[in-house]
Amino acid sequence: MKAKIHITLKSGVLDPQGKAVEHALAALGFGGVDSVRQGKYIEVDLAESNPETARSKIDAMCRQLLANTVIENYAFDLVE
Amino acid sequence: MKAKIHITLKSGVLDPQGKAVEHALAALGFGGVDSVRQGKYIEVDLAESNPETARSKIDAMCRQLLANTVIENYAFDLVE
Repeated sequence: MKAKIHITLKSGVLDPQGKAVEHALAALGFGGVDSVRQGKYIEVDLAESNPETARSKIDAMCRQLLANTVIENYAFDLVE
Repeated sequence: MKAKIHITLKSGVLDPQGKAVEHALAALGFGGVDSVRQGKYIEVDLAESNPETARSKIDAMCRQLLANTVIENYAFDLVE
């Protein structure tokens, strides 16, 4: 079972990496870009076939290691 | 219109960041993790209402700046 995890900065938290990308896009001539936010995308392969167990494991991983819940939100989908 | 872009390493390309996460999860006592791959997730807000134009713009952004197509794949979805 595979988990696809998205970790994004909470709104209101400054995103200098996103700002840098925004300015680089403008410098390359891409107009009409209102905002860019950069986050992380993590794929975890789990040897776990029960979706409920997998869900609670991934949730614990996000809280304990993958996301800094003070400034980041996380969300994940499980796929077979 | 918002683009949700996923940038992932091509298979076969070493992912030291993913390996570090994998080892950290093991050290925290999370068993049964077969592999971890880390990528990037970028949200771009575009002032563009035509989906076709937006799609080609985002594709150009990915090729020219956001993804290193030698070692990375990219994929994106457009949402209103």
